[in-house]
Amino acid sequence: MSLNTFGHLFRVTTWGESHGPALGCTVDGCPPGVPIEAAAIQHWLDRRKPGQSKYTTQRREADEVRILSGVYEGLSTGTPIQLMIENTDQRSKDYGDIAQTFRPGHADITYWQKYGIRDPRGGGRSSARETAARVAAGGVARAALAVLLPGLRISGYMVQMGPRPIDRSRFDAAEIERNPFWAPDARAAADWAEELDALRKSGNSVGAVIEVVASGVPAGLGAPIYGKLDSDLAAAMMSINAVKGVEIGEGMAAAALTGVENADEIEMGNDGPRFLSNHAGGILGGISSGQDVVVRFAVKPTSSILSPRRSITLAGAETEVVTKGRHDPCVGIRAVPVGEAMMACVILDHLLLDRGQTGGTRGRIG
Amino acid sequence: MSLNTFGHLFRVTTWGESHGPALGCTVDGCPPGVPIEAAAIQHWLDRRKPGQSKYTTQRREADEVRILSGVYEGLSTGTPIQLMIENTDQRSKDYGDIAQTFRPGHADITYWQKYGIRDPRGGGRSSARETAARVAAGGVARAALAVLLPGLRISGYMVQMGPRPIDRSRFDAAEIERNPFWAPDARAAADWAEELDALRKSGNSVGAVIEVVASGVPAGLGAPIYGKLDSDLAAAMMSINAVKGVEIGEGMAAAALTGVENADEIEMGNDGPRFLSNHAGGILGGISSGQDVVVRFAVKPTSSILSPRRSITLAGAETEVVTKGRHDPCVGIRAVPVGEAMMACVILDHLLLDRGQTGGTRGRIG
Amino acid sequence: MSLNTFGHLFRVTTWGESHGPALGCTVDGCPPGVPIEAAAIQHWLDRRKPGQSKYTTQRREADEVRILSGVYEGLSTGTPIQLMIENTDQRSKDYGDIAQTFRPGHADITYWQKYGIRDPRGGGRSSARETAARVAAGGVARAALAVLLPGLRISGYMVQMGPRPIDRSRFDAAEIERNPFWAPDARAAADWAEELDALRKSGNSVGAVIEVVASGVPAGLGAPIYGKLDSDLAAAMMSINAVKGVEIGEGMAAAALTGVENADEIEMGNDGPRFLSNHAGGILGGISSGQDVVVRFAVKPTSSILSPRRSITLAGAETEVVTKGRHDPCVGIRAVPVGEAMMACVILDHLLLDRGQTGGTRGRIG
Amino acid sequence: MSLNTFGHLFRVTTWGESHGPALGCTVDGCPPGVPIEAAAIQHWLDRRKPGQSKYTTQRREADEVRILSGVYEGLSTGTPIQLMIENTDQRSKDYGDIAQTFRPGHADITYWQKYGIRDPRGGGRSSARETAARVAAGGVARAALAVLLPGLRISGYMVQMGPRPIDRSRFDAAEIERNPFWAPDARAAADWAEELDALRKSGNSVGAVIEVVASGVPAGLGAPIYGKLDSDLAAAMMSINAVKGVEIGEGMAAAALTGVENADEIEMGNDGPRFLSNHAGGILGGISSGQDVVVRFAVKPTSSILSPRRSITLAGAETEVVTKGRHDPCVGIRAVPVGEAMMACVILDHLLLDRGQTGGTRGRIG
Repeated sequence: MSLNTFGHLFRVTTWGESHGPALGCTVDGCPPGVPIEAAAIQHWLDRRKPGQSKYTTQRREADEVRILSGVYEGLSTGTPIQLMIENTDQRSKDYGDIAQTFRPGHADITYWQKYGIRDPRGGGRSSARETAARVAAGGVARAALAVLLPGLRISGYMVQMGPRPIDRSRFDAAEIERNPFWAPDARAAADWAEELDALRKSGNSVGAVIEVVASGVPAGLGAPIYGKLDSDLAAAMMSINAVKGVEIGEGMAAAALTGVENADEIEMGNDGPRFLSNHAGGILGGISSGQDVVVRFAVKPTSSILSPRRSITLAGAETEVVTKGRHDPCVGIRAVPVGEAMMACVILDHLLLDRGQTGGTRGRIG
Repeated sequence: MSLNTFGHLFRVTTWGESHGPALGCTVDGCPPGVPIEAAAIQHWLDRRKPGQSKYTTQRREADEVRILSGVYEGLSTGTPIQLMIENTDQRSKDYGDIAQTFRPGHADITYWQKYGIRDPRGGGRSSARETAARVAAGGVARAALAVLLPGLRISGYMVQMGPRPIDRSRFDAAEIERNPFWAPDARAAADWAEELDALRKSGNSVGAVIEVVASGVPAGLGAPIYGKLDSDLAAAMMSINAVKGVEIGEGMAAAALTGVENADEIEMGNDGPRFLSNHAGGILGGISSGQDVVVRFAVKPTSSILSPRRSITLAGAETEVVTKGRHDPCVGIRAVPVGEAMMACVILDHLLLDRGQTGGTRGRIG
Repeated sequence: MSLNTFGHLFRVTTWGESHGPALGCTVDGCPPGVPIEAAAIQHWLDRRKPGQSKYTTQRREADEVRILSGVYEGLSTGTPIQLMIENTDQRSKDYGDIAQTFRPGHADITYWQKYGIRDPRGGGRSSARETAARVAAGGVARAALAVLLPGLRISGYMVQMGPRPIDRSRFDAAEIERNPFWAPDARAAADWAEELDALRKSGNSVGAVIEVVASGVPAGLGAPIYGKLDSDLAAAMMSINAVKGVEIGEGMAAAALTGVENADEIEMGNDGPRFLSNHAGGILGGISSGQDVVVRFAVKPTSSILSPRRSITLAGAETEVVTKGRHDPCVGIRAVPVGEAMMACVILDHLLLDRGQTGGTRGRIG
Repeated sequence: MSLNTFGHLFRVTTWGESHGPALGCTVDGCPPGVPIEAAAIQHWLDRRKPGQSKYTTQRREADEVRILSGVYEGLSTGTPIQLMIENTDQRSKDYGDIAQTFRPGHADITYWQKYGIRDPRGGGRSSARETAARVAAGGVARAALAVLLPGLRISGYMVQMGPRPIDRSRFDAAEIERNPFWAPDARAAADWAEELDALRKSGNSVGAVIEVVASGVPAGLGAPIYGKLDSDLAAAMMSINAVKGVEIGEGMAAAALTGVENADEIEMGNDGPRFLSNHAGGILGGISSGQDVVVRFAVKPTSSILSPRRSITLAGAETEVVTKGRHDPCVGIRAVPVGEAMMACVILDHLLLDRGQTGGTRGRIG
């Protein structure tokens, strides 16, 4: 990762500010001959699009993606794919005061401290709007993975909103697409809806935990020691706006386990090793084991809220900040497709890296 | 991060296996003119060295570091610094069976799957022994930071062993160096000692949570969007053996907070902004705010245990694995100096990156 | 350099094909607070623009650059600067046959061999049109250099066309802007005009040598051993379409010199060392010496010519290729501003790298 | 390339100074399962070793390589391979004056200017001794290529010493190993011997041109636009000490050709396209065509000579410098195996990169 680029061989560079004329990404290193259609990428963008329920920002963005390069007659050519999304709804008047004050919990102040200049319109580069570009890049990654790893499935969902986790015993994958929270637990979704209504009305916001699972990842992706699959996933998820924690498998809870509990025992299945549990989250020593790759990340509550908070102005005066504008009361909701996109990009990148170094050969067991 | 290298401008490449003739690292990009002594690096290595209490592996390694390049008359020259540690205690007979079976929870199987070959002696490249090289590199980073950021303090300690966290109300920094757990809470250390004795005797192991805090980090380190300070810290910590989760500030707990609670309010201090809380862990939008940078990571329990676990052999036969040898019952203990070293490396790297791009200029407030 | 990106800290990623909807570049790592105007970048693009004399392709491209991100109220913000140029003149019918045959000397065949797919319209990604994006990026680099190194001057010019070099004794910098060849020798320009007319009419083309000189480069830019200033310049110039050779200072002619002749003797000037000659081209051991940095590169003749050449078709049939369309008879002419742009980018990148590592401190002499 | 590292997937980081305790390299990204023996690497080092004829420095170095990691039971494991060469002959007294004066034409002054410190013993990091590490890395690359591209042949030789080129009509590959100049023209070797004797006795030195040819490179290696095979070769060769120019195929002479002359016509051979000439040097659009890859580079004369040259001291006083010590009168001779090693590393790196992105699939012709 290097400033605005991530990935080793499949490399994505995003650009653009919340209220500039456009934003987008350059996807470099995509394998050639992959069917890429704007409509397919649009599908993923639409899942992330604001204004789809009362629980997300009412900002209306068409978020229409255009493919400007790297695709010829519907197929990737192996050259950089430029994906551009024009910003169409830029009510920057909403943000007038923002230029002179720093929102507590927001990157306003650190951008100013670092650069001595910042684009205050809609948070500029630090806006969650940047994640649209990642989702578009993820659409390209998914298209390539559909060719290279047809058995791969990536599924993201919310497992906690505020202090309330889902009940894993009620986990129902079919529920995920049925509620505005991408919750696999219908009852949790209903509870969250009620709670979020109340929070929104009181000018408050709340955090969330997202889980993203990739099934069908072959054993052998990742690399020691700093190119570990989990290191790259951690960096990828932590780079998403407002993320404060990342877990693989048991995550922080691994601390509380004993070695006897934590060891995922192995038996021999019909087509290779079979693990009896998945505390590891599908990654051992930085390398995928063939089990589901399981990542979770925590998204803090939106810092742009209507409740007044103490802060200071550019001139150093103390003040109270109330952030108007159209903000997500739980920005974690829209982080679900973003987390999926990052998972897709990282897995594709490691798939290419692995076949680069090893040629895809594998050690035989049995 | 790229396979065995991490860092952007201050780049560390580690090499070596647990039971090979030596291991070490190449530190590239160190500023010139920094006083570097083997003795000072040795100081940090000695903190990580095995065999110092009954709670760490009884493997005896001198872990003596030699500086082979990049230092002239006690000062860094700006060229690569090679730090080598010879392996002196390689009782590889302890690991005889290991070559034919896969320890559950260990990278044995994934290395084999990926490469079709593995060095089974002591875990080879996947051994925690690799972290000695990081600690050595961290010693160089600290030496450079002592010149460039004399006010910086990095402090690591254990905040949880197994299911038992420290009591933050008893936090006493002076305790950290007084017990074998680097615990800032004497009572917790005593409890852990008792628990770990029992676990060790029963052939079991346990996980832990480590916290590393850097004080005196100036505002402005880090970068949008994929070169975020927290992204790089997450990758750095996740790259340490056995780490399964990384948190910045509130970490996973941020999910449970509301925006009102989470916002770190700001007032004007004598020498700039002053935050009234630090839920953010010192990083906003990927850029340091001048507050303490707070990172936590969870270390899973050692998978090399004496308790039998079901597994398979290379030939695909089912078996039970009991790992003899001299293993840490709580590998988290020795991860403390490793986490500190990674913090030092990441902060120096971002300090150099920042002065590269911005020249160190800062936006004025007040 | 990494596929479509070059630079370490000042990183440029170009994208786009000759006949796609647009092309452009993402400039990452620009220092903040630099005045950036589209008009200033346009100035440099206009120098490269086709159709300005009968010696360059008659393709008419507005080549109008738009700044889509990274600039706020006329100043760079430190975030990625996206520069887009829409393609307005895409007479792709000119290229109909090209899709089925391979032009000798052209990348048609290797793109096909590598990717199994290619965008044949106007050469796709391999078109010299890609260099417009570099020139735009160079415009940003120059803007930053104007702030950071106000004494820097970059000057490119043609020193040879076909077998005819300029006469260095007639070197007149003022001539460079006065003739369509950027020749510093008016008589050479006149000769070349005559020769090129004849070549063009006969359906032929010719090569050229370009020299780019940077004056006012401070001592100390560059780095051992693989981040040498000359290594990066060599890669940068060799990456320009049709370039087959790169020289620093004496270049290939250095082979013919003795050590006595080649040594640039040094005396003490008023403000530091003064060299009595510049065989080294301003770079010693990969690091700038404070003298003029002198680079030359050879551009091969355009391979798209009207003279029939033997070739094969996609189906493997032998054929003769005659390339119609609007091609430069001496593509070296338009490479002059491209070489200047690459010089600007490389120098800025190394300036940032150097202040990152060393903080810009310098060893004192005298 | 990044300071002391080169390569994308097959990455080599060299370290060490001329007169420090040791030097070496870390080779990261080597495919697993490659037979690697110290003796085979030693073979290549021995070709570069000083003191083998009166035409190279009389410094006696055993240059014995040790493999410290990454190889298990004679096979690469996919983890970093550390190759170390201890410095055994460090007569640093020879270099006493050097610390206070700057040799004209040498990196003494620029290292000092950049870093404010330098290791003066034997040129420190800027010594050609660093190239031993490259040759060792090249030995690993060759071992991997022997597995992956068994038909590959890399051959380097001198084609010019001082002003005297070989006569290509007398080219005899068998001669290369028979004379101390690696000259494929016996008569040129005899002439050079005479000339170099005279130069050496007069305390002078001379430059040279080296050509390195790789046969059996498959079509499709390389990448647009900044990851071109020729860009990487140019950077690789230019990074060798004393190199001032790099050419691919016709090189600088391409400028003098017309498009008709330069176009390498194509016909259909039994197993694919066959080119009727190779002006391109095997690379079109940055991608290999399947023809021989041909690179040439010019090495300037050694600047460490016995003839007095005007210079200055650290204190700024003017002086005359006479460099005693044991220096190569034509450092180009020993650059031959170094150029071969760089070719091997670059080709392997691009082979891995290509199979990473494309999986090694190829477009069909015929």
